[in-house]
Parts: sequence; C-alpha cells; structure tokens
Amino acid sequence: MDLPLQLDRTSVVPLHRQLTQQLRQAILDGRLPAGARLPSTRSLAAELGISRNVALAAFDDLFADGYVVGQHGSGTYVAHDLPVLPRPAMPTPSGAPRWLRPTAPPALTFEPLRPGVIEFRLGKPAVQSVPPDVWRKIWADIGSHPPPADYGAPSGDPELRAAIAGYLGRARGVACGPDDIVVTSGAIQSLDLLARAILLPGDVAAFEEPGYPVSRHVLLGRGARILPVPVDDDGVQVDALPSGSDAPYVVYVTPSHQYPLGGRLPIPRRMALLEWAAANDALIVEDDYDSEFRFDAPPLPALAGLDTSGRVAYIGTFSKVLSPALRLGYLVAPPPLRERVVRLKHLTDFHTPWPVQRALASFIQGGHLERHIRRMRREYAEKRAALRATLAPVEPLARLIGLEAGLHAFLELREEIDARDIARETLARNVAVSTLDGYYHAMSPRNGILLGYGGLELAEIVSGAAVLVDVIQRKAR
Amino acid sequence: MDLPLQLDRTSVVPLHRQLTQQLRQAILDGRLPAGARLPSTRSLAAELGISRNVALAAFDDLFADGYVVGQHGSGTYVAHDLPVLPRPAMPTPSGAPRWLRPTAPPALTFEPLRPGVIEFRLGKPAVQSVPPDVWRKIWADIGSHPPPADYGAPSGDPELRAAIAGYLGRARGVACGPDDIVVTSGAIQSLDLLARAILLPGDVAAFEEPGYPVSRHVLLGRGARILPVPVDDDGVQVDALPSGSDAPYVVYVTPSHQYPLGGRLPIPRRMALLEWAAANDALIVEDDYDSEFRFDAPPLPALAGLDTSGRVAYIGTFSKVLSPALRLGYLVAPPPLRERVVRLKHLTDFHTPWPVQRALASFIQGGHLERHIRRMRREYAEKRAALRATLAPVEPLARLIGLEAGLHAFLELREEIDARDIARETLARNVAVSTLDGYYHAMSPRNGILLGYGGLELAEIVSGAAVLVDVIQRKAR
Repeated sequence: MDLPLQLDRTSVVPLHRQLTQQLRQAILDGRLPAGARLPSTRSLAAELGISRNVALAAFDDLFADGYVVGQHGSGTYVAHDLPVLPRPAMPTPSGAPRWLRPTAPPALTFEPLRPGVIEFRLGKPAVQSVPPDVWRKIWADIGSHPPPADYGAPSGDPELRAAIAGYLGRARGVACGPDDIVVTSGAIQSLDLLARAILLPGDVAAFEEPGYPVSRHVLLGRGARILPVPVDDDGVQVDALPSGSDAPYVVYVTPSHQYPLGGRLPIPRRMALLEWAAANDALIVEDDYDSEFRFDAPPLPALAGLDTSGRVAYIGTFSKVLSPALRLGYLVAPPPLRERVVRLKHLTDFHTPWPVQRALASFIQGGHLERHIRRMRREYAEKRAALRATLAPVEPLARLIGLEAGLHAFLELREEIDARDIARETLARNVAVSTLDGYYHAMSPRNGILLGYGGLELAEIVSGAAVLVDVIQRKAR
Repeated sequence: MDLPLQLDRTSVVPLHRQLTQQLRQAILDGRLPAGARLPSTRSLAAELGISRNVALAAFDDLFADGYVVGQHGSGTYVAHDLPVLPRPAMPTPSGAPRWLRPTAPPALTFEPLRPGVIEFRLGKPAVQSVPPDVWRKIWADIGSHPPPADYGAPSGDPELRAAIAGYLGRARGVACGPDDIVVTSGAIQSLDLLARAILLPGDVAAFEEPGYPVSRHVLLGRGARILPVPVDDDGVQVDALPSGSDAPYVVYVTPSHQYPLGGRLPIPRRMALLEWAAANDALIVEDDYDSEFRFDAPPLPALAGLDTSGRVAYIGTFSKVLSPALRLGYLVAPPPLRERVVRLKHLTDFHTPWPVQRALASFIQGGHLERHIRRMRREYAEKRAALRATLAPVEPLARLIGLEAGLHAFLELREEIDARDIARETLARNVAVSTLDGYYHAMSPRNGILLGYGGLELAEIVSGAAVLVDVIQRKAR
C-alpha cells in the first residue's frame, strides 16, 4: 500500500485516532477504493513504527464506523457500502411543518455573566466560600465507585431525602419524614411538576406582582392565566386575593423574602393566607428560595410549618446555599399531591442525576451544609452592611428596602429619577443592575433598581455601589 | 444554670450539635422558660470542658432557629415567641381538594434490583467495566474548583455539545455542530420535551407495537393517543403507517435495535420511512438508545444521517454506554424544533446539572468514551455468545432473536409454553426475566421472554440461562 500516512507524535490527538482519520480520509477521497485490501495491522505497525495495538484500535474504529469489512486473519477490505457521508449542516424543514404548532412556548432570556462587569445579579451566591477540602472529598467519593447499573427511585435517593427532612425540621420547623420529600432538579422543576399536577390550560394562578419572572413563565408555559396580586414592603397583600367563586385554585408566594421586593410576610398575613386557602379550597405554593439568610431579624415560621390542613406545597433549593448550576432542589407536598408529582417526575426525567444527589447527601450528612450556611450568614451580613453604608449618601433620593433577609435588596428611586436611565448609565461604567419593571406582569411598576449582592466580593460591592451613588446623584442635580 | 447537659465525645454527632439539641429540648419542655438568661458561652464552655467555639456554634444555631434572642455581650435569652413546634406528620387535605384534578397522570412501575436474584433486566449496562482511574480523575476535577456562581446555558455546556457533535459525526454519521445539540437529562426528558413542543392533547402519535413502555407513557402523559404500528423481526413495518388525512404528526421508532424485539431496520425500510414522513409532513423521532453495540453486523446509518428534509429528531443517551443513573442524554433536532425544545428546557429545569455535564465532556474529550465503547463491545460480544450457547438446547422450543445489536435479546416461545408461567417459575429459582406481553399497548402479544444481559456477569448469564433452559424443557415435557 502506498499511502502517505504521517503520524505526529507531539500531537494531543492519540496516534490511533490520527491513523483512523487518515485512513478514513483516504477511503472517502477514493485513494483507497471499495474492495481494496488494507495491509495487516502487523505490517502497518512495523512500517509506521507504532505498536500493533495502535493499528488494531484504528482498524476497530474503521470497522465500527463501517468503512472496512472482514476481520481476524481473513484480511481487512474497504467496504462497498460506505457510510453515508456527513452532511455539511442540519437540514431545515421548508415552510411551516404541521408538527410545529403555531404557538411557541414563552421564551426566557439567558445571559451569561459578562467578564469585567460588576453584576448585581439576583440569585448568585458566593461560591468561592464553599469549603475546598470538603468539596474535593465529596466529589472524590463519587468517583471512587463505578456508577449505579440501574435507575434510582423517581422520588430521589433515600439518604438524601432523609437528610433533607432532618434539615427542614431543624432549620425551618417543617416536620416531615423522608417519604414526604421529592428530590427535584431545582425549584423550576418543582414548580413545573406542581403546575403539571394541578393546572389545566386556562386555569387561573394567583401570582405576586411584582414577582419572580421565571416562575411566572413556568406557569404561563403550562397555559395558566396569571392573576396578579399586589405586593407591598411586607410581601403579598393577602386581602387582595379574591374569595368565593372568583378564588383561584393556586397562589404562588415567596414569604421569606419576597422576590423581588424583599419583604418578609408577617405572621398575621401568614395566618390570613392559610385561612384564605382553607376557606377557598386552594393550594399555596411556598417558594422558600433563600430563607436560610436573614439578618438582625427573628425567624418567621414557614407556611408549610404552620399549615394544618394539607394546603401548602413547599419548594426548597440548594441554588442559593451552594450553586444554581447544581440544579438540585426539593418539594414537600401533602400526600395525594406528592404521589402525582412523583409519577410526573418519573415521566419527565426518571430521577435527578445520581452524582449530584449523592454529593448533596454527603454534604448534609457530614454537617457541612449547616456549617456553610452559618459561615455564609456572617459573610453576607458584612456584604449587606457594606452595601447599605455605601448607598447611604443617596438616602434622600432613594430608599433601600428588603435587606432583612436574602441576597438582594431593592433601591426605590424618587419618581423623577428613571430607573432605566440609571441602569443604562451604570452599565456604561461596567456596573450592571436590573430595573424593577421587568418583574411585573400587568400592573404599573414602582420605580427602582434591584441589587443582588451575594455573589460579589466586598470590594466589588463597594465600588459598584459607589458608581450607582454617583450616577443617581448626577441625575438628581 | 442547673441543666443536666451531657456531651458524648464518642458520638458521631458533633459536640456543638449535641449541645444545640439538648438546649433546644430544655427550651421546648420548659426547663428553660421564655425570657430565661442563658449562661455566657465562656462559662458554658468552661463548665462542660469544651472549646468556646463549640458553645458559640450551638448558640448560633439556636439563634438562627429562633429559640434564643439577643447577642454580643448583652446576654442571650430564651425567646418569647418560640418557633412553631414540629408537627408529628404532614397534614393531608380532607376529601378531594378541587386543585387535585380528577385524572391522575399515568403511573410507571419502578422496582429496585433484588439482591440475590439474577435479573435479566433490560437497559442495565456493565458499569463495573468503567475504567476506575479515568472515572476517579474525572470526578476529582469536578471537586477541584468551586461550583459555578450562576446558571449555565439551557441548551447545555458548550464544550459538552461540541464533544457530542464530534462523537455523533464519527460514530453515527450524523453531521452536526455544537449548536445543533441540546443536552438533556436523559432520553425520557428528550422525548418529553419533544412531545411538549409538538403534541396537543388528543393528537395521534404512531408508536412501535410492541414498544418501549416508558416512552409510550411519556406520550400518554402528554395526552397523546397512541396509534400502534406493528413490528416484525426487522423492526417497524413502515408500510403499515397510514397516509394522507389519517397520517399522524409524529412516529416514534428505535431503528438500531427495536425495543424490545431487537430487529435492525433495513436500509429500504429506512428510506421508505423518510419518504413517508416527507409525503405526509410528519416528524420521525429516532430513539437511538443502544446503537453503540452491534456484533458481526455492518453498521446501518442513523435516520438522522439519511434525512435531507429536516424531519428527524434524534435522541441519544449515555445510559447504556455508561450508567442510567447519570441521567444524561442529548437531542439533535431541525433548527425550528430545537429552538422550541431549548425554551421548554429552560422552563422545565433550566439546564442539566453542571457536574454531570462537565464529567461527560471530560470523558469524551479525553477519548475515553470511544475507548470504553470499543472495550464494552468485546465484553458484550462474549456475554452474547455465552447466552446463545447456553440457550442452544431449547432451540426446537424457542427461537432467540434480536442479538445482532444492543444489550438484550428476545426468546420467542412455542405457543403451548406460556411465557408468564416460565417467568414465574424461573423467579422461584431466583432468575428474573420479563415477558413480552407488558410491552404491548393494544395488539395481541407474541409469546416470549426478554433477556437483558449487558449488566450481568458472564457466570450469571450462564447459570441464569441454564435455569431458563431447564424450566422451558420441563414445561415442554
């Protein structure tokens, strides 16, 4: 065979793959025609000065991909029916195929972080403070055994469920056992499964206004109609919920730290909300997304801990205490609802990936979660104090609220200072903030800026907030 | 303070948690009444012979949970408003709440593996053969950095998408770039997202009969009506698909290794299927769940590689080449469909967990996936040979088919030997097999047994198959 085969021993591409590629290219461009006999692996190895195993691996690949036929002593030949040549690109159906329904699902924006910009983005925790030794050990454990040979339980790993139940009892006063927990791939999935279990297209869901856009879109994506319920500095205005025949089936709330305004629902409103749900046979969806973090303020019991009639579905997440990229959360729901959610979870993705479930079970069982939360509480308290101190000079022009809990706050601006102008001008100076108007569904928005500070370094908070102060003060002049 | 605090230094429970628990108990049962002043952490530490940090940690916990108030020099007191006491159990709504819709979603069974039983379960790969060094290193890398501070792209990690696109081009002749790929949490999620993108309740979906029950339930869970399309030993009978106004929008097929009968769809049927889809403006969903494994048989091109008109959505998975518990798969779909799927993925769980995506990207980029597949092909070929040899004696009573590819085969039994009797009797001898009847939606089933052999050891295959032979032979007497 007279083929110009050239192997590059300095390349990162393994030798057998180089050989495969060059032989395949020779077959595809006709230098090795159909039916041609290839040299034996032994002679090829000798000719190229490689081990015979390298040649064997290349031949295996070519055989597997259908470029050559025959094997084991009888010789290797270029196949007559070559595999279909790769197309240059994916074909696109012409026109509008009938299987592509006219209505597209609602679109959420996803923007990766911009390097060089101080982003006061909501929901970003301080991942640099995850204890490196513990983190390393937990993942090393995952890699120290082969993966499971079979699927796991749709409701989640039993040890993780037990660990979460214990944590919820200790930290949130929600008494539940492992069987009450469903492990999910994050709060979005928890809400999506709930919506699928209870909502039919056209059903009305009451939703905080302003509220968490992702959750609202999840409900819209299920065909729900949104009934906006106004929010004030103390959270959702329970007395604005319609009763009787107008009462919605379901209401979505964030009582620990209203998303995005930051209010904490007072006890009397909590009791009133539970009474409303009982009187109107409705389900309360409690999204407790960052309840772990609260400062100089007494804890308030979760609705799920106060509920005595099985009308609260509780959504928890590890996105804020660890990382949103883990996609791990959980759901506590009254038994008949929980059973449906487990069935739907099975039909949706069978179960949440095993490595992530096991890693979190170790993290909680070893006491690391609660230790980490305690440490983060102190760290966030410092960041919060720095934010407040740096923003103090704008006080006559703006009011900072929602700082008692969570990892973000709301800076309400005086009417004549347009929040969108401020956001545009800070961005020009590499400081990104979001304006409140994007969080509304229907009502006219309050004028202000949201500041997520959890994931920023102290120095970034101070310099970013200083830019904000400067921009606001110039605007007010 | 005269409290009987007893710390156990030999316990696995950390000292600070023991202290927290005992103080909390004392508060709850009234030994420490509301308003009582706790001793200082310094004196408590001295009295108990523990470090002050341990006492501080316990006080932090009690403060965080709302059992005590005040801090930093001014003294610590038992709170007046105690956190709500944990309930004994989750409350259940009485009667049938209106938010629990009358129709429950379809239920799939999930049975964990039974220890001590040789289970010829379908879809179980040989996880013990995953190379331990590589596996260890890949997960160690995950643990060597803090987790990401923010969410990832809904379509998946860009490096993983590039790695999958490269692999698909090399191994399956499906030419696509990273942007054509959507990373999903397994084949079930791929199908569920597709169903959500294209099916409205009541729409008809054509489905192989017999077929993969989980996929059928996913479609049923979306409200689809199933149109069963008969399958023979060569796969789905394309000429049985209705045309014209009766043609369904979508057909689900497993052409590489029909699930469960094991046929490989011949090229003429593949071309006919693509022509049918073009003529009837339908979408083909190609579930290529175990195409990596094929024995003494030439490769057949994927439908997605033959498609020139954008009518194939291709579902791939790492469940069979690595482990089903990873919950990692991918979808290749024509551009307008792919965009919808990405939107729905965002609304469903935002993205697949980052650790699993990163681990698989390393596995593919390092060349380990293809090396592993080559090794597994040899291992499975041996297992398959052992299964065939051990079952040879029943040949007049039973016919073994579907062995050219995949990790399972079908043993068709003569009419007078009832498959369910055989399964019952082998189970009594600790050998579990499934019968074909469970895989049908509507038509009358063929009589036989399914044998998943991928995850069993060679010795288990031989002894399990020997039991099966014995049971069949006794039955035929």
